This record gives sequence, structure tokens and C-alpha cells, in this order.
Amino acid sequence: MKAEIISVGTELLLGEITDTNTPFIARQLAMLGIDLYYTSIVGDNCERLLDALRQAWQRSDLIITTGGLGPTQDDITREVIAESLGETIAIDPGLKQYITDFFARRGLEMPENNIKQAAIIPSATAIMNPLGTAPGWWVEKDGHIIAALPGPPGEILPMWEKEVFPRLEKRSDGIILSRTIKIWGLSEAKVDELAAPFLSVPNPTVATYAKTDGIHLRITAKAPDKRTAGKMLAERESDRRAVLGDYIWGVDEETLENVVGQSLVSQGLTLAVAESFTGGLLAYTLVMAPESSSFFKGGIIITADDIKTAWGLKPELSSGRVGAETAAKMASLVRARLEADIGIGIELYTEPDGGTNIGRVFVAIDTGQGGQSLVQNYSGRPRQLVRRAVQHALFDLRNLLTSR
Amino acid sequence: MKAEIISVGTELLLGEITDTNTPFIARQLAMLGIDLYYTSIVGDNCERLLDALRQAWQRSDLIITTGGLGPTQDDITREVIAESLGETIAIDPGLKQYITDFFARRGLEMPENNIKQAAIIPSATAIMNPLGTAPGWWVEKDGHIIAALPGPPGEILPMWEKEVFPRLEKRSDGIILSRTIKIWGLSEAKVDELAAPFLSVPNPTVATYAKTDGIHLRITAKAPDKRTAGKMLAERESDRRAVLGDYIWGVDEETLENVVGQSLVSQGLTLAVAESFTGGLLAYTLVMAPESSSFFKGGIIITADDIKTAWGLKPELSSGRVGAETAAKMASLVRARLEADIGIGIELYTEPDGGTNIGRVFVAIDTGQGGQSLVQNYSGRPRQLVRRAVQHALFDLRNLLTSR
Repeated sequence: MKAEIISVGTELLLGEITDTNTPFIARQLAMLGIDLYYTSIVGDNCERLLDALRQAWQRSDLIITTGGLGPTQDDITREVIAESLGETIAIDPGLKQYITDFFARRGLEMPENNIKQAAIIPSATAIMNPLGTAPGWWVEKDGHIIAALPGPPGEILPMWEKEVFPRLEKRSDGIILSRTIKIWGLSEAKVDELAAPFLSVPNPTVATYAKTDGIHLRITAKAPDKRTAGKMLAERESDRRAVLGDYIWGVDEETLENVVGQSLVSQGLTLAVAESFTGGLLAYTLVMAPESSSFFKGGIIITADDIKTAWGLKPELSSGRVGAETAAKMASLVRARLEADIGIGIELYTEPDGGTNIGRVFVAIDTGQGGQSLVQNYSGRPRQLVRRAVQHALFDLRNLLTSR
Repeated sequence: MKAEIISVGTELLLGEITDTNTPFIARQLAMLGIDLYYTSIVGDNCERLLDALRQAWQRSDLIITTGGLGPTQDDITREVIAESLGETIAIDPGLKQYITDFFARRGLEMPENNIKQAAIIPSATAIMNPLGTAPGWWVEKDGHIIAALPGPPGEILPMWEKEVFPRLEKRSDGIILSRTIKIWGLSEAKVDELAAPFLSVPNPTVATYAKTDGIHLRITAKAPDKRTAGKMLAERESDRRAVLGDYIWGVDEETLENVVGQSLVSQGLTLAVAESFTGGLLAYTLVMAPESSSFFKGGIIITADDIKTAWGLKPELSSGRVGAETAAKMASLVRARLEADIGIGIELYTEPDGGTNIGRVFVAIDTGQGGQSLVQNYSGRPRQLVRRAVQHALFDLRNLLTSR
């Protein structure tokens, strides 16, 4: 099946909004094994949208439109689809009731303009929109499909998952599933080397990506059905786990802070952190993890050299840039002061290096039985270095927790 | 002038990368008063790209392509432009030297594949790419222009600013400038009301947007030249400043942390912060501001109730959720402990409210002459509430610093 996406909206052509619907739908179509050959953006202009739809009808089997389903005069997608198909548009009483009810549940009367959103053509059925007043259209005619969706990404998501995806899945001759294995502590080149025997295999495919939270190894399997694709993924994942072992810290949507948080909660341990030039990002990342109030005691941020003494850190540690020792002192200090089971000290020194920066990260973890301190160099822009340093500390903590 | 953008790359159609070049170029064209009527994405496929270019040539005066200028066989944009114009492509000795030098400066030999990037057609001149090996093309023929740019956004930026923008500016019959005035402490409805007399004026236009750092009022002026547009902007800005006064904290790319940082540095003051459920985001935001080492002393993060006593905060403050008093104590505590001129205490309590969350933010600022404590309610997702709370604290501090 050949597909094409048309995004409708003058605000997109002015660059006032970035079209995030197209990449989302593109990924979904790739997963369904549907070939996406073209995407385009057209303004709120009847003539140009009509041209775009007619061209798409000639060259594509599936046309997905987003935007232009609102209640104002600018919203022209419904009318132009009707015209392109030579059909008459009319208010559907059921849809009118649905929209009236949508307003009523919010204690509002339906503004007169919104009745436009209850209009439909004979070859279309409505796609319900639980989060807005614009129902979508699912049009089937002469072997072509048009799925017309509203513009707001939040509204598209449930409509896609509940109605569009399942209908497309039935028509697709194969399903594509992927699994991302997240790795820390190996370079991309090393992961590539370890994945080498599979990099040229056509199915499932294996590819590596360098990210802030390490190297991602993505396995993608195509099969006639979900079960077979899932089995192919699981097999390839299992043989890669045998090779990459302890370097794997998570999969798919997992984050290091969630993994670490779960371990701390299940082991009944609390944590406190002391930071310098990561400036609180480690603490913030931990606070935002689920159940953080069960394990996170708080932190201190020490940036000015002259106040290191105020925290009981020896002044000579301030001047000498002896990162490992400072990090260790910070870890034990914060562990004691905040009465936590585990203290982390993290020091980051950055210096310019040509157009970029080199950062030296020192991480110390104190569990009361002597801490360990590790150093690692990174290069990048300051914010990248800070994010890297935080991920680095979380990974060290993860290792400590899994080895207990 | 009618313009159209064609982004080239199969990875875009698979949703593996989001096309950020199109919104950037769209905004630039809007600024130049050039009408952008279509944008599209086409894969690395000669036939489909050729169709797209031929169609664009028929309907547009200016065609901007991005991507497909790399050294591999997949990179087809040069060859397809040549074919669409019926011209012969050939290696340019000057460009070959330029690319060879690019590698030589990095101590590398030019890989054989890269010679492809030195190819050009008679109607094109090269657009130099200081950050990569892919020169762009500027094609002028039969009243049409094609600007072919590489895919990486970082490479496009200097090429656009130094070569493409100035050439387009000369051809544009008008320039559009805009100015964003940033406001805190008024609702969008209130700003709308105060801007009302101008909301329907066609030039300069005035529009409001709700953002995390407050309400943005964007003024956009169109004029035959930059000077006139600048004057129109300045006049409208000045009359809005007369009305919005102290609620305005900055313009355009300014951030609250930069504004606050500059004030602290110029007044020779230092700052320390104590946070609870903003978890370090206020500290991190300040650390990332320019010259932060001159004014930021550090911070503490107190999340666990049981350690409030460890910081000398009365236990009854922990249980009673008496936010204003806790924030004030935190402000004076951190000011004293970190020997800073100003201490900020920030408390955030969130509770679920239907599908969203309500957050109560308490901000106290202690300057040693008694602090002030303010409370504000917001609603949103947890991360939104934290960002709002941080912006709120920065705005309170900004007010204190400007009133000194």
C-alpha cells in the first residue's frame, strides 16, 4: 500500500507551529509496513488543497490528512475532500448530537459554528475524537482510503490508536515491531562490533544509535503477524543480551532514573546527592522519577569555591581540582547530613577545547562501607556535558544496586 | 515570489528524524515576505524527486531543497536537479580543492566518494558550507531560483545567514520584522484586553501566546525596508510598554535567568536557593545562566519531611504544609548557610485534580532585611508545574532586583 500524508494549515507554512504529526504518523506507517512516499504541507487554501488531494488520489492508495477540521471558516478540509470526490456534504444528526453532548458535559451550549464539524459525505464514516469536537473521517472509495484527522497532536493520538491503526493493520500485509536495547559504558563502535554479525541481516534488522543515555541498539522485525514478529525480536534480543550482558540497563521507554528508583524502592534504600556544576540536574532527574518521595532525601549544590569550607570540605580540595577526592567527600558529607543510606557526589570540570568543551566527570558513591570514585571524560556543549554526567552517575548507581 | 520547500531523505519518511529545517526556513521566508505555498518530503528516489522538482518548477518561483548532498550513492539531489534542468553535471576544480582542503585541515585525506560533492552544473554557483563537505547550489534559470542546501540543521544555519538570506532579501519586495515582548503576572486574557485596540490592525500585527515563561506579545511589522519595519516595531513596542509596564521582563531571546543573572552581577550580589519539589530545577536553571559562577553560591534540596529537622527547620513546618512559612525559613536558612546576599526558598505542593494537577507555589526571598513570601496557584502536568514554579521564583527575584 502506497501512502501519503497531507498536513493542512497556514500556520505550519509560516513556521509558527512545527508539524509533529507527520513524523508520528510516518513512524506508525513504517511499523505497519506501509510505504510512505510523500508528505506535504498545504495552507488553508481551497484551490491548493484540492490540487494536492487530486494528485495524492492519483499516486497513493492511502491519504492521511491532518488539520483543517476546526469550526472556523479557515477550516476547509471536509469541504475540499467532498469536492475532490464529487460528493455532497451534509450534517449528520448523530454527529450533531455527539458534539452537542460534548459541550453539554462541560456545561456549555454548542456555539453555532461547531455544527460544521457534524458534516459528512456518503462514502465517509466518522472517527470519534474523545478529546475534541472535531470527528475525523474515514473515507473508502474506488480502492482508495482517506483518513482525515484533526491538527492537535493530543487529539490525534487516541483516534489513531483506537480507530485508524487497527483498520490499517487489517489491510497491511505485514507488521513491523521494534525493540530498543539501552546500553551504557561501551562506545558506539564497540556495540557495532559486537552487533556486526547481524548488521547486514535483512530481517530482523539491527542498528545502533548514540544517545545521551548511552548507545541504543534497535532491533526491528517484519513478519506477517504480531506474534511471529514478537518471536523474532525476542530471539535476537536474547542472543544480544548474552553478548552485551551487564552493559544493558534497560529497554524501550525505560529511563535510568526509573530503573534506579525501582531498585532503591525494592531494596528499601534512601539516597541523597551532592552536586557541583551539574547544578541540581541529578537531583531534579531523581525527583521526577516515579515514587521518588520513597527513596530521595534531597541534595546539596556547591558551586562557589569559598563555601566549600562552610560544608566541611577542606579548603585545599577547592583549589587543587582534585576531583575524585572532592566527589568522595561530597558523597560522604551528603550521606551523613541527610541521613541517607547512599550518598552520591558528582563533580564536573569543563574546559573549552576548540569549538567544543571537554568535561571531566567524577562520580563517588558512598554506602557507608567505603565509597568508589570513577572518572570519565566527555566532550560536547556545556548542557550536553551536564546531561552526560548525570546519566553517568545514574549508571554507576545502577551498577552498584544490581551487584548488591 | 512564490516559494516551496522540498526536503529529501528516506529517513524523514520513516519518521526516524524530524524535519526541523522546514519550520526554520518557513519562518525565515515569512520574515522576508516571501509566500510559502507548499512544502514536501520525498525519499531518496530519483524518479519521485524528479517529479517533485518538475512540479515545483511549474508552480513556484523559488524552490529550496534540503538534504541529499552527501557523498554516498543515496545522495541524489545534485544529479536530479541537473536532470530536471537538462544540464550536464561536472566536477569543478575549485570545489574539489575546497573539499580536499576541508579534509586536509583535519589531517585527513579526502575519501574518493566525496569528489561527488564537488560536482556542479552551468547555471549553478556554489554556496559555501563552512561546517561540512557539502557545498550548496544556487541555481538561477528562466526566472526561477533553486537553492539546494544540505540536510544537517547546523550546516544550513551559516549558509542561510551568510549567503541565502542576503540574496533573497534583495529580491523581496518587503521585509517582515517581529519583536516578542515577554510578560509575567498577567493572564493571556488580560494581555489580550490591553492589546485589544491593536489586535485587528493589519500592520503591524499584534498577537498573544501563553508560554511557560509567561505571556508573549508578538508584534510583526511589514515594510519595504528594514529601517521602516524597525521604526514601526519600535513605536508599537513603546506604546505597549506604556500600558504593560512592570509586567514586561524581557524581549525576544531573553530568558528570566539571564535577566536575573545580569542584575545580580551588575549589583555585585550573590544568591543561594533552597528547594523542595522543584527538585533542583531552579538551581540548575541558574547554573546554566551566563556568568553564574559570579553570583550563584549553591543550593539545597529538601524533599524528605524527616530531614527538615536536620536542616534546622521546625518539625511542625513539615507536617502542617504551611508553605509560606516553610519557604521563608528555607530562604533565610540557605542565605545564612551559604553566606549569600540573597536566599530564595521555594515550596511546591501538587495535588491531582481530575486529569491534571493543581500546584501551589510559595516563593520567599530573603535579603537579610526581612523576606517577602508570595503564593500562586497553577494547574498542569507535574513537569509543567515545576517549570512554572521556577519561572515564578525568577520573576519574583527580578522584581526585587529592579526595585532596589
